[in-house]
Amino acid sequence: MILSIVEVLQCRVIENSTVTVHGWVRTRRDSKTGISFLAIYDGSCFNSLQIVINNTLPNYNNEIRRLTTGCSVSITGKVVKSLSIGHNYEIKASKIEVIGWIDNPNTYPIAAKKHSLEYLREVSHLRSRTNIMGAVIRIRHTIAQAIHRFMNENGFLWVSTPLITASNTEGAGEMFRVSTLDLENLPRSHNGKVNYDKDFFGKEAFLTVSGQLNGESYACAMSKIYTFGPIFRAENSNTSRHLAEFWMVEPEIAFATLTDISVLAESMLKYLFKTVLIESYDDIQFFTKFFNKEVKNSIIKIINTDFAQIDYTEAISILQKNSKNFKNTVFWGMDLSSEYERFLAEKYFQAPVIVKNYPKNIKAFYMRINDDEKTVAAMDILVPGMGEIIGGSQREERLDRLDARLTEMGLNKENYWWYRDLRRYGTVPHSGFGLGLERLIAYITGIQNIRDVIPFPRTTKNISF
Amino acid sequence: MILSIVEVLQCRVIENSTVTVHGWVRTRRDSKTGISFLAIYDGSCFNSLQIVINNTLPNYNNEIRRLTTGCSVSITGKVVKSLSIGHNYEIKASKIEVIGWIDNPNTYPIAAKKHSLEYLREVSHLRSRTNIMGAVIRIRHTIAQAIHRFMNENGFLWVSTPLITASNTEGAGEMFRVSTLDLENLPRSHNGKVNYDKDFFGKEAFLTVSGQLNGESYACAMSKIYTFGPIFRAENSNTSRHLAEFWMVEPEIAFATLTDISVLAESMLKYLFKTVLIESYDDIQFFTKFFNKEVKNSIIKIINTDFAQIDYTEAISILQKNSKNFKNTVFWGMDLSSEYERFLAEKYFQAPVIVKNYPKNIKAFYMRINDDEKTVAAMDILVPGMGEIIGGSQREERLDRLDARLTEMGLNKENYWWYRDLRRYGTVPHSGFGLGLERLIAYITGIQNIRDVIPFPRTTKNISF
Repeated sequence: MILSIVEVLQCRVIENSTVTVHGWVRTRRDSKTGISFLAIYDGSCFNSLQIVINNTLPNYNNEIRRLTTGCSVSITGKVVKSLSIGHNYEIKASKIEVIGWIDNPNTYPIAAKKHSLEYLREVSHLRSRTNIMGAVIRIRHTIAQAIHRFMNENGFLWVSTPLITASNTEGAGEMFRVSTLDLENLPRSHNGKVNYDKDFFGKEAFLTVSGQLNGESYACAMSKIYTFGPIFRAENSNTSRHLAEFWMVEPEIAFATLTDISVLAESMLKYLFKTVLIESYDDIQFFTKFFNKEVKNSIIKIINTDFAQIDYTEAISILQKNSKNFKNTVFWGMDLSSEYERFLAEKYFQAPVIVKNYPKNIKAFYMRINDDEKTVAAMDILVPGMGEIIGGSQREERLDRLDARLTEMGLNKENYWWYRDLRRYGTVPHSGFGLGLERLIAYITGIQNIRDVIPFPRTTKNISF
Repeated sequence: MILSIVEVLQCRVIENSTVTVHGWVRTRRDSKTGISFLAIYDGSCFNSLQIVINNTLPNYNNEIRRLTTGCSVSITGKVVKSLSIGHNYEIKASKIEVIGWIDNPNTYPIAAKKHSLEYLREVSHLRSRTNIMGAVIRIRHTIAQAIHRFMNENGFLWVSTPLITASNTEGAGEMFRVSTLDLENLPRSHNGKVNYDKDFFGKEAFLTVSGQLNGESYACAMSKIYTFGPIFRAENSNTSRHLAEFWMVEPEIAFATLTDISVLAESMLKYLFKTVLIESYDDIQFFTKFFNKEVKNSIIKIINTDFAQIDYTEAISILQKNSKNFKNTVFWGMDLSSEYERFLAEKYFQAPVIVKNYPKNIKAFYMRINDDEKTVAAMDILVPGMGEIIGGSQREERLDRLDARLTEMGLNKENYWWYRDLRRYGTVPHSGFGLGLERLIAYITGIQNIRDVIPFPRTTKNISF
């Protein structure tokens, strides 16, 4: 019977059964008594499996003693209780087959030693073989599964919104152009400009920065939907918080107010944090032990703390009372930069905080104008140690107000004809938010650079692998 | 208490409870006895909810009798057993609030009548309000959830592979260019060519046609992984089977042969078909009743039939024996076009059929060469009524054979340096396949045009919404 390593470690067979496992060598240790030990991993869990090998195996000298980190092996033997500390079960090998050797072990890029995360990015095709990236990928999987499960159990339908789009959603953020034109021989119109009629889509096309507007169209028929897919930003910012390509979950709910989605966002975050603690416990333990001792505590704190709720206006007044902490003047109408967000969550509330009702002038056209005519029904969720993790709003469902806002912001109504149609035909109050998957995983694992929580990061000047 | 329509129809409250539902009007009918009936939908299930309204409600004449298809309403009333045929429970309304009217009901694009699928594509922002698109979206959701669940329960980890790539995976298929260069002012190198050093990634970048190669990198560390994300093809084919942007699931397994993934593919398809029949039963019934009476039977047939298995060589000999059915000569070495695929599945086997071991000359460089040196360990799964639904292969894990193949096909080894590394360091036999989500949903629903099973289709000259 072939078992994965997690199945052996949990002894999902009768003790002393003979099983086969496949995996890669983490380390090899030879004792003086003629017994060798291999630590084998296969990605199924954090822990390695210990293989106990007697020198009586026929290929002991010519193969087993030549095994190095990274070699792939097939091992057959008995599952037995382990006498070694930290191992529940191990395998007493009766047969070891070497499947793949390491081409020159001395130059193997991820030999068994500590590598910096920066270095590992240069070998992204191999870094999933390390403890740390293995843990990241399992946590990423756990979170993604939990997102789909949470949404499904709460009656949301997954909707895939298009990645290639002709429209610039928010009138904000640099976009990537998508084209099949031959750049060495661009077709021209009479006026000498590039003729996009000849392009694949017959007009200019870009990679989307958000699925929200398309998602609204589906929420205004199916009531509760979510998107979960990749999003693109061509921002030229070479920081630890930006990726050109990342994954985002965006729920959108009809007949829902800002309060409704604030409640949803808090319960969703708590569900995700709880799930990761249960289902990826060993991986979280690893990050806590070897990476950042606050990891587990900060997860537990999110689960057990009621999120604070304040208005933007209240936030400004708190910041003003604490102005000695900041270099620049705090004033009503300013955007809250990360410095202010972290002060509120880390210092003042010492808890996640939902800031609501921001000035309309710093927010997007689609957010619902409040009765004060100065603010919009927007919310951001700020968490200690990071700042914003979720941003959402109630959408403007009143056609006249939406049109006024488009005009005010110099946007062309014609380009939003179908979005305006949603307000002409059975319009409903509706709200939604966006949660970036990579920011969330960085927060959970305590990893500082977002490039280390996605398999193959895309950033300025970096498209390797 | 606010309930969704599926919750009311299944009476997930105590009978005679007062509840509130939100939704949109499907139809209104006024009886002569002063009672009106509304059929309300909210996307939560196929069936509408019947609302019984007495003319004693204060807004009966000035609002309720003016309600038309598409108006949004909030309804409060008692959940009672329905006396009407086809309704289990209905609501006896005590209050009806109109949330959003229809701007000119006579020109409402999706008034209550039969619309062609072609027409509905022109109003993709509203078509989710129809019975048919609602059913498609719920089935799409059910399938996507089932894919994630099947993978998770079988020990696969979800890995997101990059969408923007510098490499052309298979040396096949037209790709979209991704760029932030200003096409009106292209930067030039000394030789007059476009200078991609100035582009966002510092080199030419494209949208990926498959996540496979990146997926292999993760399978060769985590053992069992799958990708589930969008894929792009810039093919200029204006057919009912092609999209420029679609979703694909690609499992990849280490220590697995072609046989292993054939078994996996068959059990996965059966699981997905079973799940959709259970969880989207009403939607499947709708397609069977009003769209194509074979829909339900063809689902059941997939679930209950053992897939046939033959070698390509055997398939050719079958086709040759039945050559009177085909215009062109059948010969060993040719690709199997849809005509031949459908003959095998529909006529000859009358069952899904897994065709294995295709000639190497018609297949991609990464497929494993068989011992006969003429064929590769590739498989396609053909289903009656469609032809190919899954394509997969065992990957070439032997570096010398891979290199020979790259050379043979005129591909530059340097471009595959990291892919080759996977064969230099602890290489393992591994295999995987790809399943297109939209093809699958088209097959399940009996919908002929793949543009009608994705929310916002992207095809040649079409990037609306």
